[in-house]
Amino acid sequence: MTRIAVIPGDGIGPEVVEQAVLTLDEFRLGLDFDFLDHVNADTYLRTDVALSDEDVARVASSRSALLGAIGDPRVGSPAYGRGVLLRLRFDLDLYVNYRPAKLLSDRLSPLRRDRARAVDCVVIRENTEGLYTGLGGSLRPGGGHEIALDIDLSTHRGTARVVDHAFSVARREVCMVDKANAVEHGGGLWQRCWRTAAARHPDMATRHMYVDAAAMRMVTDPTTFDVIVTNNSYGDILSDVASAVAGGIGTAASANLNPERGFGLYEPVHGSAPDIAGKQVANPIGAILSAGLLLADLGHTAEAAALRHAVARAVTEGETTPDLGGPLDTRKAGQAVRARL
Amino acid sequence: MTRIAVIPGDGIGPEVVEQAVLTLDEFRLGLDFDFLDHVNADTYLRTDVALSDEDVARVASSRSALLGAIGDPRVGSPAYGRGVLLRLRFDLDLYVNYRPAKLLSDRLSPLRRDRARAVDCVVIRENTEGLYTGLGGSLRPGGGHEIALDIDLSTHRGTARVVDHAFSVARREVCMVDKANAVEHGGGLWQRCWRTAAARHPDMATRHMYVDAAAMRMVTDPTTFDVIVTNNSYGDILSDVASAVAGGIGTAASANLNPERGFGLYEPVHGSAPDIAGKQVANPIGAILSAGLLLADLGHTAEAAALRHAVARAVTEGETTPDLGGPLDTRKAGQAVRARL
Ligand SMILES: CC(C)[C@H](C(=O)O)[C@@H](O)C(=O)O
Ligand SMILES: CC(C)[C@H](C(=O)O)[C@@H](O)C(=O)O
Repeated sequence: MTRIAVIPGDGIGPEVVEQAVLTLDEFRLGLDFDFLDHVNADTYLRTDVALSDEDVARVASSRSALLGAIGDPRVGSPAYGRGVLLRLRFDLDLYVNYRPAKLLSDRLSPLRRDRARAVDCVVIRENTEGLYTGLGGSLRPGGGHEIALDIDLSTHRGTARVVDHAFSVARREVCMVDKANAVEHGGGLWQRCWRTAAARHPDMATRHMYVDAAAMRMVTDPTTFDVIVTNNSYGDILSDVASAVAGGIGTAASANLNPERGFGLYEPVHGSAPDIAGKQVANPIGAILSAGLLLADLGHTAEAAALRHAVARAVTEGETTPDLGGPLDTRKAGQAVRARL
Repeated sequence: MTRIAVIPGDGIGPEVVEQAVLTLDEFRLGLDFDFLDHVNADTYLRTDVALSDEDVARVASSRSALLGAIGDPRVGSPAYGRGVLLRLRFDLDLYVNYRPAKLLSDRLSPLRRDRARAVDCVVIRENTEGLYTGLGGSLRPGGGHEIALDIDLSTHRGTARVVDHAFSVARREVCMVDKANAVEHGGGLWQRCWRTAAARHPDMATRHMYVDAAAMRMVTDPTTFDVIVTNNSYGDILSDVASAVAGGIGTAASANLNPERGFGLYEPVHGSAPDIAGKQVANPIGAILSAGLLLADLGHTAEAAALRHAVARAVTEGETTPDLGGPLDTRKAGQAVRARL
């Protein structure tokens, strides 16, 4: 049996993960789901521990992991999210955040009909450095003389490996995005790693854009992008803009990967959406497509393609939750996908 | 006479600034333009100095300043842009970057017709801190062990003053944007300044969003925004996304302000666009609307309104450069605006 750790998490997490797991089950691939149901805000509020060392070891020793969503309005401090999601990314060294954005159905695009809007790109986001390390601090916090600083850190190793990964998955072009015209130290490092990698792939088209221009281009001309590689923060923002032009965050899937170890943590891009939690109205497609990424990475290529195809058909036929214009609840939207497998 | 410093700069800068100045001249308000024609990449490449201390003093002693664009592909290092644009922002303590985004004509929107797309918002970007200070460095640069860091700095004074300014210009809502769930030190400071300012304005609606969600919302539902206040980097990105949904960067205006001193440096949001420089095809509207912001800040409210109105009419009537679908060159597009004053 192939053990898959499952963290349903908070808010709509359990509802969407349920549909993802049921969909994976449909393929009878011998996946064995190990539910870490206790990893959520309730536990954190009770015990002050979000994810224990044992939990991390349990996830690390599984073949892959699936996560619903982490976040709860009752938890004010960023320590909780950091303690679960960011801890898994960092402790398991999941340095690639792979975020595809593909328009599943023409009717989902927020863009004008006369625009080239069939976006089909991937944002490869560095996932273990940048502004996400927690390094920094605050001097004289809380008063009128406070100075706060967060360190935006890039290492050669960390940058080169994610840039290389982008080249390994690109089909026609790699676009590196930074802000080297203003944020110069990290910018210089990214530029150097970028030029070295580009020189090693003379066959691949390359492009460089500043993040402001790239974000704008994602709206005005999204089909120009194939693979974008960028740092943690810019990847966070650009992948959300990409998912907006691809029809909304409800369908956006992601994989946190360590390609060398062949380990992935798969999660929808959306958050825990506490306002709609427990009502079975959340869109399960982001979670289901994340499960599809998991299948592909386990080598079940045909099944992954069938899953993507079933999702695209359900969406095109309007068999979706209300956020995509359909009449279905979360369960029925999951069933609609499974019925098309 | 009111002395206005003018830095045409690089690329399309001189062409668009010419139209802005001609438009200001139309109002016969006794403006005296002091051209700093030598502040450009040619001078920098020859002398290694982008903007001298005398130049800074000359700009500082003028009533306001107008800038075209800074940037040249021959200049590899970020030192040039830093030495002109960022130096003016920092040395003159222009801590508010005011970036309105308003859809001038329905036909310019990249969004679907059935969406609420009449965006009319302002991004208030902190302009003297964040990742733009140049603080940081690189250890073992150029090799496989390089570590680069840039400091993302926020001070209480710097944050509180820009948040306060946002409240002073908002009509219906202030939305503060940060990434406090991941970038925690600066995030905590912004949150504290934000709560203090919000408590002082119980009459004003307030909202908080994380930057990824805000960037997405700017595409899916841009009309929900009134005033956004955020840090230097997020403001850079969000204002570009806002200008994309408002019809393109060619029409986007901005003001770098020190409200206490009543000084402003006005510039179009677009860059120097070297590929189209010297061809009289650049869109002068971003520069002309920036001149309109200058007029408003000098107290010429009626003239500023007339200018905006003339621009909107020219755009609606298709009397524009090709980027907005019109047949005109830069000069004629400027004339089209002036003819409607
Ligand atoms: C040229 C660059 C440094 C600048 C910035 O990021 O501030 C520009 O993008 C802008 O927005 O004015
Ligand atoms: C919750 C937050 C810290 C997280 C991030 O910024 O990485 C989320 O936005 C994401 O993109 O996975």
